[in-house]
Amino acid sequence: MGSIDLNDLSLKANHWGNFLDPQEFRRQGHMIIDFIADYYQNVEKYPVLSQVEPGYLKKRLPKSAPYHPEPIETILNDVQEHIVPGLTHWQSPNYYAFFPSSGSIAGFLGEMLATGFNVVGFNWMSSPAASELESIVMDWLGDMLKLPKSFIFSGGGGGVLLGTTCEAVLCTLVAARDQMLSKIGRQNMGKLVVYASDQTHSTFKKATQIAGIDQKNFRTIKTSKATSFGLPADLLRSTIISDIEAGLFPIFVCATMGTTSTTAVDPLGPICDVAKDYGIWVHVDAAYAGSSCICPEFRHLLDGIEGANSFSFNAHKWFFTTLDCCCLWLKDPSALIKSLSTNPEFLRNKASDSNSKEVIDYKDWQVALSRRFRALKVWLVLRSYGVEKLRDMLRNHVRMAENFEELLRADTRFEIVFPRNFALVCFRICPAAIGAAKPTQTNSSEKISEDVDDQKRINEVNKKLLESINASGSIYMTHSVVDGIYMLRFAVGASLTEESHISSAWKVIKHHADTIL
Amino acid sequence: MGSIDLNDLSLKANHWGNFLDPQEFRRQGHMIIDFIADYYQNVEKYPVLSQVEPGYLKKRLPKSAPYHPEPIETILNDVQEHIVPGLTHWQSPNYYAFFPSSGSIAGFLGEMLATGFNVVGFNWMSSPAASELESIVMDWLGDMLKLPKSFIFSGGGGGVLLGTTCEAVLCTLVAARDQMLSKIGRQNMGKLVVYASDQTHSTFKKATQIAGIDQKNFRTIKTSKATSFGLPADLLRSTIISDIEAGLFPIFVCATMGTTSTTAVDPLGPICDVAKDYGIWVHVDAAYAGSSCICPEFRHLLDGIEGANSFSFNAHKWFFTTLDCCCLWLKDPSALIKSLSTNPEFLRNKASDSNSKEVIDYKDWQVALSRRFRALKVWLVLRSYGVEKLRDMLRNHVRMAENFEELLRADTRFEIVFPRNFALVCFRICPAAIGAAKPTQTNSSEKISEDVDDQKRINEVNKKLLESINASGSIYMTHSVVDGIYMLRFAVGASLTEESHISSAWKVIKHHADTIL
Repeated sequence: MGSIDLNDLSLKANHWGNFLDPQEFRRQGHMIIDFIADYYQNVEKYPVLSQVEPGYLKKRLPKSAPYHPEPIETILNDVQEHIVPGLTHWQSPNYYAFFPSSGSIAGFLGEMLATGFNVVGFNWMSSPAASELESIVMDWLGDMLKLPKSFIFSGGGGGVLLGTTCEAVLCTLVAARDQMLSKIGRQNMGKLVVYASDQTHSTFKKATQIAGIDQKNFRTIKTSKATSFGLPADLLRSTIISDIEAGLFPIFVCATMGTTSTTAVDPLGPICDVAKDYGIWVHVDAAYAGSSCICPEFRHLLDGIEGANSFSFNAHKWFFTTLDCCCLWLKDPSALIKSLSTNPEFLRNKASDSNSKEVIDYKDWQVALSRRFRALKVWLVLRSYGVEKLRDMLRNHVRMAENFEELLRADTRFEIVFPRNFALVCFRICPAAIGAAKPTQTNSSEKISEDVDDQKRINEVNKKLLESINASGSIYMTHSVVDGIYMLRFAVGASLTEESHISSAWKVIKHHADTIL
Repeated sequence: MGSIDLNDLSLKANHWGNFLDPQEFRRQGHMIIDFIADYYQNVEKYPVLSQVEPGYLKKRLPKSAPYHPEPIETILNDVQEHIVPGLTHWQSPNYYAFFPSSGSIAGFLGEMLATGFNVVGFNWMSSPAASELESIVMDWLGDMLKLPKSFIFSGGGGGVLLGTTCEAVLCTLVAARDQMLSKIGRQNMGKLVVYASDQTHSTFKKATQIAGIDQKNFRTIKTSKATSFGLPADLLRSTIISDIEAGLFPIFVCATMGTTSTTAVDPLGPICDVAKDYGIWVHVDAAYAGSSCICPEFRHLLDGIEGANSFSFNAHKWFFTTLDCCCLWLKDPSALIKSLSTNPEFLRNKASDSNSKEVIDYKDWQVALSRRFRALKVWLVLRSYGVEKLRDMLRNHVRMAENFEELLRADTRFEIVFPRNFALVCFRICPAAIGAAKPTQTNSSEKISEDVDDQKRINEVNKKLLESINASGSIYMTHSVVDGIYMLRFAVGASLTEESHISSAWKVIKHHADTIL
């Protein structure tokens, strides 16, 4: 009987303990590494854009969770059979859609370490290494980008790792909002005004909605080809002036370095000059293109940043750090902390309460209380590749985009719609190739109606081209419409993409164009 | 020359391609699995609460990022030498602080798969499997919790995976805010009122700050021992009535199932009844305790939920899914979508534009545009353990907390301050044990001053006990103060904790109490 009891006990201990049993962790962990390595090895075999129909997965999975445990082998088999076909393969070397979500081994390892430690670093004490490493890598990165001293900790500013740009914009907007309301009184909430260009990412509009900014006070400044689709500072100034004359209170401008549609760059210097005259917070959203500034040849695009209040870029876009990871720097973190800090009893501790404020409690720099140890993956990326290889990699993407441009230029059926700034090429089948009428010299109203019809037709052909290419699964691109022009976006940046993929992509595009034209 | 060029090329390809090179991924991936498995195996050797001093890491790391790449072996060595000492070990079996951040092998594997695929599932098309699996697991989980049909997709509601409770509360609050403003006009923004108890998590206050609710309209309803620190519905009603009489507009009540300090449970039925009478949105925050409702014996604590508008719990707390993962269900997702949707041109696609609305674009259910494939880890947890083992694991934690209670009860120097509801025990050294004066029958004002002095002294002793225990590094607990009483919180829930750890923890506590008393 005694021995049976002992067996029971040991079975029981095993039974309870095994959710994190180190040996079982090791066994299953190695399996998953091989699974993912195989996935990368085979990723080119799958259509880049998933070709499943809406509702496909419900038909394949059971109606409810299993009652009994299932072995990992069965589950991984199901991942391969049922999940992989429903993926759009952002890590495929043939992925050129949206902006890249550039993974890397170092980014992956950092995420694994953070997940393994699984600490909840809301304040310093809850895991000192998480807070301290974050401050350190934010200063390292700030230096690499040659941000003004005032944005990094040693210069009185500071940086934080958030999930996404939307969170960065929301937090800084709330800080700016509260700063103004503390001066003019909360009853003026409905009179706060915010500014962006018609190329600014929709994430800003969403942030203003969440922060309770009256949407009739959301000013969209029109851009044009004349300003390369950058926000015109003079138009910003005149809009601000008329708002002030109307008794409103301008609080925030969202400037962009590298817009989503065409990677246009707003003129930061002039915008900050205008904002300074009226005491307006300027946030610079460099979600995609910010990372390029670690290369000296791109850094001038941030000129004028010294006049801004905050700056962010997404390391999970074009900086080899897996989703999610947005790097935000501020000149005056205390404005953020004032709006976002809470101090419940259960979180109080000696380090946070100390008068010297020698520790950073990052919970007061973000929306949520809980936070993941994101600094690990940034640290691993910076150390594994170093400034040298990171620059090389970005430059290589730019070079491949240049090469793609060359291929386009050599084919008269295509045109590059906007000059390329980084590694995104915006192009289309040109009007001449589809026999679109040239505007004739008749009276102006007739001319316009002809142009509109032509443009519609040109847009339709290009839309058809994109859909036909994406349906093939060979490569995946997305589109945008700027100034009425529908264009195809070819964004180089997937970590696995090499020169040979660019040539293949070009062949695919030509082939589909041949069929359509 | 030709062969040299070829070598150059192959070197170059290797050089560029290797950020995600499958073979190198495999090599480094296996290394990190062993690193983390070793960490779990050795985690009891480290002090649970990190003992480093503020600023320790800056002294150990270089001032800037390296220019040249560093090998993974060096980096992992530094993780061990410099990061691990700065961790507070949330995965240690001797961790009883805050609430658990319960990891599991399945949760870890799911996170790895999501990180490996690294898709950005903002809309259906960007990775159909990500959206579809999320809807499926949210219905599975909803069924496991026996949520009313109206909260799950088949009943007209629906669920989403967010990062944290703060995000869930913020999003639902914004939906409720906008619903009311669309009726009464935005000029009444300053007249919106929100309600919580004095035990509600600070995350709600923060969400109201972000959403622009005037903080003078944040109503904190007082709780007491008489209502077991649950929000008294009658007091809620009278507060609402007086706000309405004052010309204000009540919009939102945050009810809690399992408060942070003592796991008190608000009376959901009566609260929802009150809210219904005045058209107020009720969100039920069950961040910690929600998962317990998969066990029938706890489910009654959610009785009345059918009257609420939304419900959330954190799978990353007590449900073995690594940080971050908050499960939110709503009866009326369209209210959320109305407030949070954006539809920029570059995201438009056939599936989203279709009139049948047959796909879910989860970007419209959350703050950010980008989102991680969190459903994978939930799916892996549900399948790897099944309903059966998940219940067993939760019940085992509850049983260990019961056993800890028994140990406390057997020692007259301690008292259990609040009745235990789940796996958290709130206790302290009792007044008698430190010779605190019993309240004497003198006039009432004298009595109060004596009580206050005594309480202060009792609190000081207990604080000293906690600090002395945590400084030892053997176990880690945190505290709270409710109704003036400072108490130690012993939260069982780390996945590695077994019965033997409870006995050891008790020995540590007794030993430190012996020294202090």
